[in-house]
Amino acid sequence: MIKHPAYIVEPWRILERELDLDTLAQSESVFALANGHLGLRGNLDEGEPYGLPGTYLNSVYELTPLQYAEAGYGYPEFDQAMINVTNGKLLRLLVDDEPFDIRYGTLRSHERVLDLRAGTLARRAEWTSPAGCPVVVRSTRLVSLTQRAVAAICYEVEAVERPLRAVVQSELVANELVPDPGDDPRVSHRLASPLVGEEHMVTGHGAILVHGTRHSGLRVAAGMSHVIEGPARTAVDAESFPDVGRITIATRLQPGQRLHIVKFLAYGWSSLRSRPALHDQVAAALAEARLSGWDGLAADQRACLDQFWEGADVEVEGDPEVQQAVRFALFHVMQSAARAEQRPIAAKGLTGTGYDGHTFWDTETFVLPVLTYTRPAAAAAALTWRHRTLPSARDHARRLGLAGAAFPWRTIAGDPCSGYWPSSTAAFHIGADIADAVLRYVDATEDEAFERDFGLELLTETARLWRALGQHDAEGRFRIDGVTGPDEYSALADNNVYTNLMAQRNLDAAAATAGRHPEQARRLGITDAEAAAWRDAGAAMYIPYDGRLGVHPQSEGFTMHAPWDFAGTKPDQYPLLLHFHYFDLYRKQVVKQADLVLALHLRGDAFTPEQKARDFAYYEQLTVRDSSLSSCTQAVLAAEVGQLELAHDYLREVALMDLRDLEHNTRDGLHLAALAGIWIALVAGLGGMRAGDGRLCFCPRLPSGITGLAFRLRYRGRLLGVSVTGRTAAYALLSGEPLSVAHHGETFELGPEPVRRAVPEAPRGPRPNQPAGRAPSPRRKAKPPH
Amino acid sequence: MIKHPAYIVEPWRILERELDLDTLAQSESVFALANGHLGLRGNLDEGEPYGLPGTYLNSVYELTPLQYAEAGYGYPEFDQAMINVTNGKLLRLLVDDEPFDIRYGTLRSHERVLDLRAGTLARRAEWTSPAGCPVVVRSTRLVSLTQRAVAAICYEVEAVERPLRAVVQSELVANELVPDPGDDPRVSHRLASPLVGEEHMVTGHGAILVHGTRHSGLRVAAGMSHVIEGPARTAVDAESFPDVGRITIATRLQPGQRLHIVKFLAYGWSSLRSRPALHDQVAAALAEARLSGWDGLAADQRACLDQFWEGADVEVEGDPEVQQAVRFALFHVMQSAARAEQRPIAAKGLTGTGYDGHTFWDTETFVLPVLTYTRPAAAAAALTWRHRTLPSARDHARRLGLAGAAFPWRTIAGDPCSGYWPSSTAAFHIGADIADAVLRYVDATEDEAFERDFGLELLTETARLWRALGQHDAEGRFRIDGVTGPDEYSALADNNVYTNLMAQRNLDAAAATAGRHPEQARRLGITDAEAAAWRDAGAAMYIPYDGRLGVHPQSEGFTMHAPWDFAGTKPDQYPLLLHFHYFDLYRKQVVKQADLVLALHLRGDAFTPEQKARDFAYYEQLTVRDSSLSSCTQAVLAAEVGQLELAHDYLREVALMDLRDLEHNTRDGLHLAALAGIWIALVAGLGGMRAGDGRLCFCPRLPSGITGLAFRLRYRGRLLGVSVTGRTAAYALLSGEPLSVAHHGETFELGPEPVRRAVPEAPRGPRPNQPAGRAPSPRRKAKPPH
Repeated sequence: MIKHPAYIVEPWRILERELDLDTLAQSESVFALANGHLGLRGNLDEGEPYGLPGTYLNSVYELTPLQYAEAGYGYPEFDQAMINVTNGKLLRLLVDDEPFDIRYGTLRSHERVLDLRAGTLARRAEWTSPAGCPVVVRSTRLVSLTQRAVAAICYEVEAVERPLRAVVQSELVANELVPDPGDDPRVSHRLASPLVGEEHMVTGHGAILVHGTRHSGLRVAAGMSHVIEGPARTAVDAESFPDVGRITIATRLQPGQRLHIVKFLAYGWSSLRSRPALHDQVAAALAEARLSGWDGLAADQRACLDQFWEGADVEVEGDPEVQQAVRFALFHVMQSAARAEQRPIAAKGLTGTGYDGHTFWDTETFVLPVLTYTRPAAAAAALTWRHRTLPSARDHARRLGLAGAAFPWRTIAGDPCSGYWPSSTAAFHIGADIADAVLRYVDATEDEAFERDFGLELLTETARLWRALGQHDAEGRFRIDGVTGPDEYSALADNNVYTNLMAQRNLDAAAATAGRHPEQARRLGITDAEAAAWRDAGAAMYIPYDGRLGVHPQSEGFTMHAPWDFAGTKPDQYPLLLHFHYFDLYRKQVVKQADLVLALHLRGDAFTPEQKARDFAYYEQLTVRDSSLSSCTQAVLAAEVGQLELAHDYLREVALMDLRDLEHNTRDGLHLAALAGIWIALVAGLGGMRAGDGRLCFCPRLPSGITGLAFRLRYRGRLLGVSVTGRTAAYALLSGEPLSVAHHGETFELGPEPVRRAVPEAPRGPRPNQPAGRAPSPRRKAKPPH
Repeated sequence: MIKHPAYIVEPWRILERELDLDTLAQSESVFALANGHLGLRGNLDEGEPYGLPGTYLNSVYELTPLQYAEAGYGYPEFDQAMINVTNGKLLRLLVDDEPFDIRYGTLRSHERVLDLRAGTLARRAEWTSPAGCPVVVRSTRLVSLTQRAVAAICYEVEAVERPLRAVVQSELVANELVPDPGDDPRVSHRLASPLVGEEHMVTGHGAILVHGTRHSGLRVAAGMSHVIEGPARTAVDAESFPDVGRITIATRLQPGQRLHIVKFLAYGWSSLRSRPALHDQVAAALAEARLSGWDGLAADQRACLDQFWEGADVEVEGDPEVQQAVRFALFHVMQSAARAEQRPIAAKGLTGTGYDGHTFWDTETFVLPVLTYTRPAAAAAALTWRHRTLPSARDHARRLGLAGAAFPWRTIAGDPCSGYWPSSTAAFHIGADIADAVLRYVDATEDEAFERDFGLELLTETARLWRALGQHDAEGRFRIDGVTGPDEYSALADNNVYTNLMAQRNLDAAAATAGRHPEQARRLGITDAEAAAWRDAGAAMYIPYDGRLGVHPQSEGFTMHAPWDFAGTKPDQYPLLLHFHYFDLYRKQVVKQADLVLALHLRGDAFTPEQKARDFAYYEQLTVRDSSLSSCTQAVLAAEVGQLELAHDYLREVALMDLRDLEHNTRDGLHLAALAGIWIALVAGLGGMRAGDGRLCFCPRLPSGITGLAFRLRYRGRLLGVSVTGRTAAYALLSGEPLSVAHHGETFELGPEPVRRAVPEAPRGPRPNQPAGRAPSPRRKAKPPH
């Protein structure tokens, strides 16, 4: 965990003024830069010390065999694991005779700044070598949002007080040594030497390396090029080897004199293209980057972000940590997705190898909602990636004896990669989550072409799965048995309420969407009878209810199970999965992460307000939040049922998840869905935002600790601004045609004139209890240190 | 599968007159000899060809790491795998210049005979070498039932028609090459070179090898000694190496002249004793064997078996295949257990490495009932082994957060060795199965010392597990959630009827037994309150019932699940687990093996006759018998509900399981529990035998194809004989005091005079249906080939 205060709280920057080597890996994740195609962890320029060196290309993975103590039919044979590709971030510095290494000598000052508007990571270090030679090093890096293949580093060495001899070795290094990941099942299987050299060459003040993977059949090219400004007697040498490209720049600096280097990086990869084609692609990208120059790239970066923030910014008054966190979150969500372009958005983005770089359901359920309303094209691109993987998902369904498509629980390229089926293969809800993301995107954009060309097929193939997976029972109810819902502390249960409700929406929407695109429906083989069967199943969907307790069981029979012994569970026994056997977790009432409560959010239309309040309170006492995917949803429901202080607590928990490393694994990468959850907790939670059928609804209410909340959204071509203070909400149409909007149930037409409405009092009820020791308490943690 | 007729049908012998190399591995299992301590597969004397070479010592195993694609808390880290120890069966023969190898030259005649009364495997081969030299080889081997460490082989080479030069190399060989097991999860991880040489030496006409295992810390000694009779010019040489001991016997034989060799083998192993101690133990055993000589060992063997058959024989009239099979079965059950002496009885005995040589619940549920009534001391010894493993079982329970003892699903030395927890760790019924075996043994023997010293603690620790595993619900019912019953096509269900009923018996019996041994109960810390809690839980045990269908669901909710699509399942898709994903099997109504139906047998007292008939018919249509542990129980229930022809079909299926290789894996070892099931199907099925509370009850009824059935039992010091023809049952007390016996519900006192009773007509009902293609049809198969 990162000790407070790791990062100085500012509204638009993540600022670090102390370098804590114990949390270096965490800071590398926090300071990661990416554009959805290329990702660079925030490693120090000189390469060492490091927590985890990381340079990633979206969808560049290696295959590793999955070994089973007892294998079973249909188990996946191979994992796809994201690999650390050629590192181009390296700029090693020799000061007089000694390597610039902050573990030696004296680091007189240190600063790193992630600038959320500039889209850059800047560093400034004042260091004195063990021999007593002082030097100032400045670097700024960016991963370009406008030139997808390109990253650039502006690096400067300045002599102070006395002259010095400086040698900079700017490198490309493949097959870097990475640390052993240990035993935690959530960590990646980091691969030693995953790349095989195919080509290396020097080109002027640059170099290009081309490598192939051993088993997955991919080829990766990395190139660098430099613009060097220094004293007249600066010497430059270039050399290359299979795993190393090196430009050596030697100079002498007088006090106040600087060596200024701009390093351009370009990356390309392909499963199809030849070595020369990839080589040329990288050389061309470098040429374009050089033409733009550092200043051009930096200006484009800021312009791109300005446009993003115009439609995405969230302002929070009264809680500066949450203010910082939500912008940090939006920045990372945006940069993980911006240029993914029909490639997946991984659970950790391109910030680390946690979960092997896999993508899960949380991309659709948590990340895409944010993108849908802030950068809708990125949401469409991510769903188009899902569409591209339909052949694998159909194969998977066939292997399981089902119809339609069964999307994999975790994957990079589309094939299932889970080694434990009860919490993966059986978690069929991912199909409905993808369908829901399609519906949300289409509702938010009216993108009919997408609906016709991609959406309908996704809805159809997932609806077909549900028809094959469920069956009408003797009483006519449509049952879906033996599946696992979002809560990973239960598995293989009948009629999971979340799954059944999401499947119901999926089935209904497939039928309705087919009706809107009759020609495409015919092409997909959808008959009237099939659409009718979807509607039948949806209408008859079985939603169990426990009349004795007056709550919905998470799954059929859940509320009959023994409650977990929370009183007997010690604080250090969380997360429970590392201290208790699945058999015990599965058979008891204990919830890892919002499941029924997620249904209360995403299928709120299926519950009365009274049911929501009762269900929420019931599951609060069972939910331990051993997953990062829970507090945001609990914040949303707490806000909806009027528990605003509790909502604020959950909001703060999710806000500080990565900035404070609350889950103790930020070192392996950021929790992208939890970052998205900060926006969800604010906008859907405190803002009460719900959308559907072309209408935006808000039920804003603020807790006492947040005095103001303003956010912007894109919806059906409009740009809206919503701002809330304690007593008043204001709605403004910043661009686009008038739109129907609801405020606490009252619908009005929002035109050019802003509309103000009073915020009604929240209903009052007792604060729900959480399991002993599991109440959210980040407000206490946030106190300044003594 | 073994093509019919593999073995000639005789009442007391398994006779083979053709050597089919394709089914050599199966015949090695069928012809295996053992005494519970040492087991020899029926490999040819000359070592090659072989299906699977095998020499096993009970509880000699190696540790191998269990690898998980995704590990979880509490998963076992190591497997214990039975290893192939030093092979002493080898007698290689050189005829003139050519090795005696039946794959070359001409095998003019071949015969192997497993003699069930002599306890020997005899072989006779007439062979002509490729160079045209004829020879006759005879061998007879035994694994001594009276000298536990000893096996012996009487080997004879005879020249016919013309003189020949014969060289016999009699060997001990460690670390034999074994074939690769392939991918079937039911097969063992055969280990290459598991033994490390510690000592080798020649002793006269013999040798001793001592080896250690690499990881499990065991030491194995094997020794051989020879008595050689041949022509005067016979030369004998001895040599030894770390992995080989060799005695070379060279001679010249005139036509009609014989070389006669008796090879004595002795084995010892220990986890504690020193190399010299083990060496000496084996040398001493050889000395004793030589003193007995071949004739003495053979005579003792026959005497031991005579005594066994006196109290165990079953005679079947009208179905000679079943007659042969039941004696084959009793022989193997007896020899697997006879001298196990506080070591486990493995699922495949000592006949092969299938299931890694592990012991499962079926030892207690299927094998021990046979031993309890035919060789009760062996049943006591097996339960004493379970008692010895209580420390491991307690540790396992602690790891699972439970009280008492959780016996492992599969093990050799007591530690859990399963790599897939839903069908192992969760199958807690094994505790109640062990408790049931204790109760059965104590009822059958009145062995109070065993009950006090071993039985009470086993009952107590299992009862404690049930109390920790279950809980009273709001209606006061005692529920046991999230467990797996005997049927491995369902898992992690609530209130499995079999489990709950067996746990009920376990709880009740623990309380009652504690009351009978108050002092021992105090020693075990049983308070009055604890015993009361056991009785409470037993009395409140929840047994779900589906009133709509009028049947018991296998587990709560089972009858709501979709039925398996039997019509759409092709014959080559069985066993289903090799062609369908567990997720699909678990969520549908399809039964691998008797589960609810096993409860109808073992807890028949908990059901009315009408319930039994309805439940049996319901589960018949769902049960596919993809396990060898089903047909015997279905035979028992078919007989009980009056479906006698169906009972005969199931009886024949279980009878031919190994002799015809119906499961296609007899190569890996015999199915010991299924062999025991032949006796169960005959005695508990057609004989209707049930026992408890000091009373034996019979409800004999024969199907049309079996004209007579007679069996013998030991019960509370008595020897009883029961014989049944179509219309009459006769009961005879062959030794011991008079006893209360029931015939079809009528109780009478059985004294020295035999008692005859009429057999009532069976109730008539429609024959239950089985899934398409899964009806038992061994009677058709049994037709002689054209």
